Amino acid sequence: MQGRVITISRQCGSGGHSIGNELAKRLDVPFYDKEIIEMTAKESGFHPQFVEEKGEHMESSMLSNLARHLSCAGRGNYEDYQPLQDQLYFSQANIIKELAEKGPCVIVGRCADYILWNRKDVLNVFIHADMEFKKKHCMERRQFPEGNAEDMIRRRDKLRADHYRYYTDQKWGDSFHYHLCLDSSMFGIEKCVDIIEDACKAMRPAS
Amino acid sequence: MQGRVITISRQCGSGGHSIGNELAKRLDVPFYDKEIIEMTAKESGFHPQFVEEKGEHMESSMLSNLARHLSCAGRGNYEDYQPLQDQLYFSQANIIKELAEKGPCVIVGRCADYILWNRKDVLNVFIHADMEFKKKHCMERRQFPEGNAEDMIRRRDKLRADHYRYYTDQKWGDSFHYHLCLDSSMFGIEKCVDIIEDACKAMRPAS
Repeated sequence: MQGRVITISRQCGSGGHSIGNELAKRLDVPFYDKEIIEMTAKESGFHPQFVEEKGEHMESSMLSNLARHLSCAGRGNYEDYQPLQDQLYFSQANIIKELAEKGPCVIVGRCADYILWNRKDVLNVFIHADMEFKKKHCMERRQFPEGNAEDMIRRRDKLRADHYRYYTDQKWGDSFHYHLCLDSSMFGIEKCVDIIEDACKAMRPAS
Repeated sequence: MQGRVITISRQCGSGGHSIGNELAKRLDVPFYDKEIIEMTAKESGFHPQFVEEKGEHMESSMLSNLARHLSCAGRGNYEDYQPLQDQLYFSQANIIKELAEKGPCVIVGRCADYILWNRKDVLNVFIHADMEFKKKHCMERRQFPEGNAEDMIRRRDKLRADHYRYYTDQKWGDSFHYHLCLDSSMFGIEKCVDIIEDACKAMRPAS
């Protein structure tokens, strides 16, 4: 199999992290998910907690950033007014480009599909699942307090979709932006890894 | 492998018809694409050409149908005013439900994923491709006059997307509505058939 960069975008609770991690082990390539937080924090100087919270989530307070951005248009050097989340996005995007440049790897989330779209050696994957699966997956990992997992999942996905829309001007989860989309609640985690691994072998040449 | 109903939604020129046909042969199950046109014409009394043209394409002239529909609201029996395309849609939907009820098969297009969504034995697949692949695929089949294939492909997909949106209130090609989405220009026709066939084996039980 040719060495490839695989991006995995995923709904909260769909098992995208586990799928990416297992896939990277099978392909014997580096795996980057939370690891990107530390790298970006180091590169940008932002606190790791800020990078984690804003690195792929668009909070409504960011609307004020947008308003500030727009109100500054034409009145000076944009760099002086660049909102913090934009600075974070571009710093994180540079890290992702550098990781892809180093060689084959698996990168989870953070608009990596969009950031690397012009590379011919990238396979973009999207993982989604039904709510029952996502709730069960999150409860098993004690990711959210019992009782309001569904609300938390919907909120997390809403923030990811808003972040993706803001920085890519595309709809998160629209199949046209990915080479392969899978419903992990239909196939299960292990089979999703099998399918992606198999699909990698059939990618068109990267020339 | 358990017997399943597989629906294939597809962009024009993506090879979805060929993929579905080959898949049905491999699984030794009936294949329904254009065949649904004759069945619907027979059932509904509409001319086959009308069924072909309006069965999965929403023309702008249908807006007048919608306006007529709305203007009639509350002023009589809806059945008396039901637009022709709505009658065609429901007739075609009944045919699709009957085909699925008969047993395992492959059904192409016509909102079959939405119409059969409440069945547990259905695998919904979406096939898309980049424009170069779609143009090449259509030119090889002499589907459109040379020189304006791209315009014709975009137009055909626009009509399909509008039709899907009108009858399902969902976005055509949004990965959340399908269990498996594939970019055929990345993997090729044969490999797409392989991946779907393999994925069928791992579907969760239909209980």
